[in-house]
Amino acid sequence: MKISIERGTLLKAVGQAQSVVERRNTIPILANVLIEAEGDMVSFRATDLDIEVVDKCAAMVERAGATTVSAVMLHEIVRKLPDGAMVQLTDDGTNGRLTVEAGRSNFSLATLPKEDFPMMASSEYDSNFAIPAPVLRRLFDKSKFAISTEETRYYLNGVFMHIADSENGKSLRCVATDGHRLARIDAVLPDGAAEMPGVIVPRKTVGELRKLLDDDDMTIAVSVSEAKVRFATPEITLTSKVIDGTFPDYTRVIPVGNTRKLEVDAADFAKAVDRVATVSSERSRAVKLTLEEDKLILSVNAPDSGAAEEELAVAYNDERLEIGFNAKYLLEIASQVDRENAVFLFNSSGDPTLMREGNDTSAVYVVMPMRV
Amino acid sequence: MKISIERGTLLKAVGQAQSVVERRNTIPILANVLIEAEGDMVSFRATDLDIEVVDKCAAMVERAGATTVSAVMLHEIVRKLPDGAMVQLTDDGTNGRLTVEAGRSNFSLATLPKEDFPMMASSEYDSNFAIPAPVLRRLFDKSKFAISTEETRYYLNGVFMHIADSENGKSLRCVATDGHRLARIDAVLPDGAAEMPGVIVPRKTVGELRKLLDDDDMTIAVSVSEAKVRFATPEITLTSKVIDGTFPDYTRVIPVGNTRKLEVDAADFAKAVDRVATVSSERSRAVKLTLEEDKLILSVNAPDSGAAEEELAVAYNDERLEIGFNAKYLLEIASQVDRENAVFLFNSSGDPTLMREGNDTSAVYVVMPMRV
Repeated sequence: MKISIERGTLLKAVGQAQSVVERRNTIPILANVLIEAEGDMVSFRATDLDIEVVDKCAAMVERAGATTVSAVMLHEIVRKLPDGAMVQLTDDGTNGRLTVEAGRSNFSLATLPKEDFPMMASSEYDSNFAIPAPVLRRLFDKSKFAISTEETRYYLNGVFMHIADSENGKSLRCVATDGHRLARIDAVLPDGAAEMPGVIVPRKTVGELRKLLDDDDMTIAVSVSEAKVRFATPEITLTSKVIDGTFPDYTRVIPVGNTRKLEVDAADFAKAVDRVATVSSERSRAVKLTLEEDKLILSVNAPDSGAAEEELAVAYNDERLEIGFNAKYLLEIASQVDRENAVFLFNSSGDPTLMREGNDTSAVYVVMPMRV
Repeated sequence: MKISIERGTLLKAVGQAQSVVERRNTIPILANVLIEAEGDMVSFRATDLDIEVVDKCAAMVERAGATTVSAVMLHEIVRKLPDGAMVQLTDDGTNGRLTVEAGRSNFSLATLPKEDFPMMASSEYDSNFAIPAPVLRRLFDKSKFAISTEETRYYLNGVFMHIADSENGKSLRCVATDGHRLARIDAVLPDGAAEMPGVIVPRKTVGELRKLLDDDDMTIAVSVSEAKVRFATPEITLTSKVIDGTFPDYTRVIPVGNTRKLEVDAADFAKAVDRVATVSSERSRAVKLTLEEDKLILSVNAPDSGAAEEELAVAYNDERLEIGFNAKYLLEIASQVDRENAVFLFNSSGDPTLMREGNDTSAVYVVMPMRV
């Protein structure tokens, strides 16, 4: 193998690949990236056995071939090379070394045989559709904060992507919950997605996927089967196993009869919650909301450290209500609101509360109260 | 006590105080800041028993008095208040609470009696002098990287500030070393400093002092005794115990007979060292320098991961020399060079190497070689 490639292009391709690689590996080759050069393209492939990413880019291929080297080390080297440098990767296949040359720098990196690199089995997908990057970004960005970190509830350790009936007919929906709060985000059903099986996309995959979605003009090709999901741009293909479990019936958790409506500026609300929560104890982080006619009082009472209270002007004209929440959960859902006021719908101090942005029901959040 | 103070002023004053407070305390009152209001000034005092900082600022004092509250919590609250807010601090001395009010926010923080706050004993200083902030900043900024972290060699856990004979007569000198590298920085002797006893300023004090030195136009009042050192601006007074130990005779470590002179662009050198060190093993980080006529070859050979080599054009016209160093140490001393070329003076591959900036002998660095 002998290829020349511009440093910036190489950095981007290797960067995407190396981020999938786990830092601690018991299987040495999983620390490596598989470099395959053919025609005028070179591909960089990395995997942790659950996720595989392949990044293709244009290169001058003088001699086709393939090898594997440490993904992190290659990435570090390329990162430290001067901007605009031409990088030459050479492996003559005899001495177990890949040579990396740029200007007066010369590196020789230990390789492992390309045959040992675990390729993810290719599979048939039940559903293939295209979706604009900003739409997919919104689905995952607004839901991922609610992913559970409890390993025993492994079926909650991801975002449940599926087809659902919404007010606007069938939608592509992402749901995440950890039992304390829930996010339900809908998008217009893309052509060809109607038969998609519901899949739980693991947390790490959600994180890797995010890096494909920065370009507003990009269209993402999505393929879904019962066991796998694939997201692809023209350069990058991210394939991931999905979580082998059943996502609980979340619809029962979403309250429908909550009638006490509070409307508040989300930014002001978040700042006030953040301030009063300063005095709360590290563990509970409980904030009490007291609702009165067009008035919201946020308060915290922590016997050890002190108390805090703040009043906000809001729109509310129902009965007086006192309800407690974990400040962290309130801050997280308030930070999802970007255009309009936050609308909270309460029932009683013991029932789940619903939050949405204005009248937009395509993004709905549920948060469980706590005793205060 | 009842005072009104602008949020920005308060934030700065409390910020400086709270940074001295240790996060984990067995003595509760050490987590607190002592607030004392009198006349039209309020002072904020915090201590860890080794360092004491007092920050004074102007305030509207409606009722004089004093109390102590959690430094971290007060700082967090003030930080989260809106810019430009007027903050009112009230303690009626009866209920063990300090009230913090700003706009519609109201906090009530647990206090501890001001009588319990440990005041650092005042002491006589042997030497008092004034020094411009940029001069003091240079002395400590360029030496602190070499402070040892080995707790058993406690006498190396700080910067040795003393009066020394330099090429330009008596100088104010800062020295730090960890046995592997050494930094020796000189400044013109300030008036009144000639009789100053040499003191070892602890690492934490060096860090806190740094925050007083950002303003180029500031003059710092320095007071030194055998046991304590004090640095003061009109607002802030930082008093610290010094390390009770004897700094070793560092002069024997600084080579005087090194004649093999290498001159190199410090930035290019640092980048090249950083690149080749990528393949070195985490532990040793050894880089070999091979010097030939106007040529420097940096190389690393790590059997497990690979090898790296880079050539630099330099000024050198002595015998061929091979010498190894820890890459981290080379990077740290190279990053001290800001105006001219780095000049290295070598003797042999087993002897300490000297580095300075151009012909400037007021900042000299010594680094021990390692076998490669």
